[in-house]
Amino acid sequence: MTRPYNFSAGPATLPEEVLKQAAEEMLDWHGAGMSVMEMSHRGKEFTQIATQAEADFRELLSVPSNYKILFMQGGAIAENAIIPLNLLGDKKTADYIVTGSWSAKSFKEAKRYCAPHLVAGALTGPWLAVPPEPTFQYSADPAYLFLCSNETIDGVEFNELPAVGSDLPIVADMSSNILSRRIDVSQYGLIFGGAQKNIGPAGLTFVIVRDDLLDRALPVCPSAFEYKTVAANGSMYNTPPTYGIYIAGLVFQWLKRQGGLVEIERRNIAKAALLYGYLDSTAFYLNKVEKSFRSRMNVPFFLQNEALNEAFLAGAKEAGLLQLKGHKSVGGMRASIYNAMPLAGVQALVAFMKEFERTHG
Amino acid sequence: MTRPYNFSAGPATLPEEVLKQAAEEMLDWHGAGMSVMEMSHRGKEFTQIATQAEADFRELLSVPSNYKILFMQGGAIAENAIIPLNLLGDKKTADYIVTGSWSAKSFKEAKRYCAPHLVAGALTGPWLAVPPEPTFQYSADPAYLFLCSNETIDGVEFNELPAVGSDLPIVADMSSNILSRRIDVSQYGLIFGGAQKNIGPAGLTFVIVRDDLLDRALPVCPSAFEYKTVAANGSMYNTPPTYGIYIAGLVFQWLKRQGGLVEIERRNIAKAALLYGYLDSTAFYLNKVEKSFRSRMNVPFFLQNEALNEAFLAGAKEAGLLQLKGHKSVGGMRASIYNAMPLAGVQALVAFMKEFERTHG
Repeated sequence: MTRPYNFSAGPATLPEEVLKQAAEEMLDWHGAGMSVMEMSHRGKEFTQIATQAEADFRELLSVPSNYKILFMQGGAIAENAIIPLNLLGDKKTADYIVTGSWSAKSFKEAKRYCAPHLVAGALTGPWLAVPPEPTFQYSADPAYLFLCSNETIDGVEFNELPAVGSDLPIVADMSSNILSRRIDVSQYGLIFGGAQKNIGPAGLTFVIVRDDLLDRALPVCPSAFEYKTVAANGSMYNTPPTYGIYIAGLVFQWLKRQGGLVEIERRNIAKAALLYGYLDSTAFYLNKVEKSFRSRMNVPFFLQNEALNEAFLAGAKEAGLLQLKGHKSVGGMRASIYNAMPLAGVQALVAFMKEFERTHG
Repeated sequence: MTRPYNFSAGPATLPEEVLKQAAEEMLDWHGAGMSVMEMSHRGKEFTQIATQAEADFRELLSVPSNYKILFMQGGAIAENAIIPLNLLGDKKTADYIVTGSWSAKSFKEAKRYCAPHLVAGALTGPWLAVPPEPTFQYSADPAYLFLCSNETIDGVEFNELPAVGSDLPIVADMSSNILSRRIDVSQYGLIFGGAQKNIGPAGLTFVIVRDDLLDRALPVCPSAFEYKTVAANGSMYNTPPTYGIYIAGLVFQWLKRQGGLVEIERRNIAKAALLYGYLDSTAFYLNKVEKSFRSRMNVPFFLQNEALNEAFLAGAKEAGLLQLKGHKSVGGMRASIYNAMPLAGVQALVAFMKEFERTHG
C-alpha cells in the first residue's frame, strides 16, 4: 500500500525512508540504549548527530568556510525580528524587496527596530512577480537588503539575485526553497528559514551567516538569539531542538543518496513543468503568477468555478491527495511539491485534476 | 530486555510506552496517512492533537481559567529575555531570588532590559539552600518577583513560595520540576520552562500566564514572542514545534494513566527518599545541599575520592545506568530522577553505588 501524497505547504511531507528509519531508531539509537529525544545535547551521541547534520548541510549547499551554520528556534517569523536585532548595528534602515505575504510580514516586523525601506514590490497583494530590477530604489545607507527567495503563499520565486555591491549583504528567507536548487551561498550575507518545508520538523530554524556579520547585535537582542553567541557555542547556548536536528540530518543523508542538489533540482524542474504545463493547457484551472517567477515549490491555483472547491478537495482526499487547500489569504488551491514529493505524486495530482475537469467541466 | 536507565538532566528519559506509541504512529497517525511531523499545524488532525495536549496539561495542573497556556520556542534561556520583554511594562526593575546557576543566568539576562534587583541569594555559587524568608529584601516597585523553583544544576528546590502580596506577580522557572508535584497555579503570575525534562522533547517551551499580564510588552519584543500575540493565535502565530507538542501530549496522557500528580508526587517522594537516604548513610558519597531544600528531581552528589569518578561512570554505564556525569560547573555526579524514571531505576542506581563502594571503598 502506498502512502497518500501530502501537498501541505509546511509542515510538509517527508521522505518515507526517513520516517521509517526514525521509527526504527525511536527506542534505541545505534545501540545507545536511548531515543535521540532522550540524549543530553552535550553527550557524545548527540554531538555526533549534530556534527554530521551540519557537515552534510554544508556539503549539500557548498557553504564556504567563512559562513557559520546555526540551528536555532522560532522559525522565520521570529527571524524577522532576530535579523534586524542582529544586523542593524548602528544603521537606521534596512532595504526590503516585498514580493509576497512573507516578505511583507518581514518588512512590518522590522519597523520595531528601524525604518525599513521598500526597494521594490508592494506591501499588499496580489503578488504575481518580482518587479524588474531597473525599477529598484535603494536607500542611502541600509544595513542589508532583504528578500524572500520563494513566497510560499503566493508562489513567486526569484530566479536570480539583484546585482548589488559587495558592501550590501543580501539576507534571504529561503524557508520554502532551501535545498531545492543550487545556489551560490557566497552571494548572500545571510540565508535563513524554518525547517518545516524542505528540511524536517517544525521548530527548527536554520541560519547561514557570513562571519563578518556576527558582531552587530543591538543591546536588546536576547542572548539566545544573538548570532555571535549561538555561533560561539556551536548552536548549543540554549538546548537545541535535538530531535529536529536529528530528522534534518536524516533528510540531508537522504538528499545525498538521491544525488544531491543537481539531481533534486532536475526532479523539481520536471515536477513543476508537469504541473504548470497542465495548468496552462486548460481554462478550467488558473495560475496567475507571471511565468518567469513561478515557484518550483509552491503552486497556487484556482478552479475557474470556485463553487466546485469543496468537491475538488473532497475528491482529491478520496484519491489520496492531501492538504491541497490554498492559504486563507489567497484562497483556491495550493500544491506544495517540495523535494520529498516524488514525480509520481505530481503525476497522480495531474491525473486527478484531469479527471475532475472531465467530470465537472 | 529492559532499556538502560537514563539519568540525563535534560533532554531526559521519556516513558517507554510513549516512545513505543510514537514509533508505531510515525508513518501514519490514526489513519490520517501522514506522520504528525507532516501535518499542517492548521489542519484538523493537528488541531485535535494540540487542543487535547493543552487540555490535559491544564487538567493535570488544575490551571485556572484566567490563565493562558502557551506553547512557544527557545527554552528557558530565551524566556529569560522574553519575560522582561513582556512583563516590565513601564517598570524599571524586577526582583530576583537567585538560588542556583539558572536563576543567576536569568538575573544576568534581565540586565538587558531593566535594573534587576537581588532579593535574596547570591550571583555566584555554590548554592546549597533557599535563604530564609525574613532576610528577603524587596525593591520599591518591581514588575515581578522571579525565582527558579528547582535548580537543575545545583539540586536546590523550593518547597514553599515566599509570601508576597497579590500585587507582585511571582514568575517561576519550573523547567525541571513541572508536573512532578502538585502546585497551586493561582499563586503565580507566570510559570514557564523548557519541555525537555518532565514533558517531552527539547525545542518546546511552555508558558502559563495570568490574563492580566498579557498586555505589558515592550515595543522591542519580537512579535513571535509577545505573549498577547501568541495567546490570541492559540500558540500558532508562528508555526509551533508540532512534533514536540504531540510527544508532550502523549506524556500528559501517560501521566493521567499513572494517576496524575497525586500519584506521581508520591512516587517522586519515594524515589528521592531512597537515593538521599543512601547518600546520607555513607561517607563514600556526599550531597551538600541543605536537607530541606534538596531537589526531588536532580540529585547532585560527589564521590569523596574524586579520582574514582571515571571508574564510577564507566561501571555505571556497564550496569545500564546512563548519563550520570555532573554538570561541568559543579563537577561530580548528578542523578536526574524525573517523572519518567521508575523507582526500579533508582533502586538499580543505589544497588550499583553500594557495590561500587564495597569494591572501591
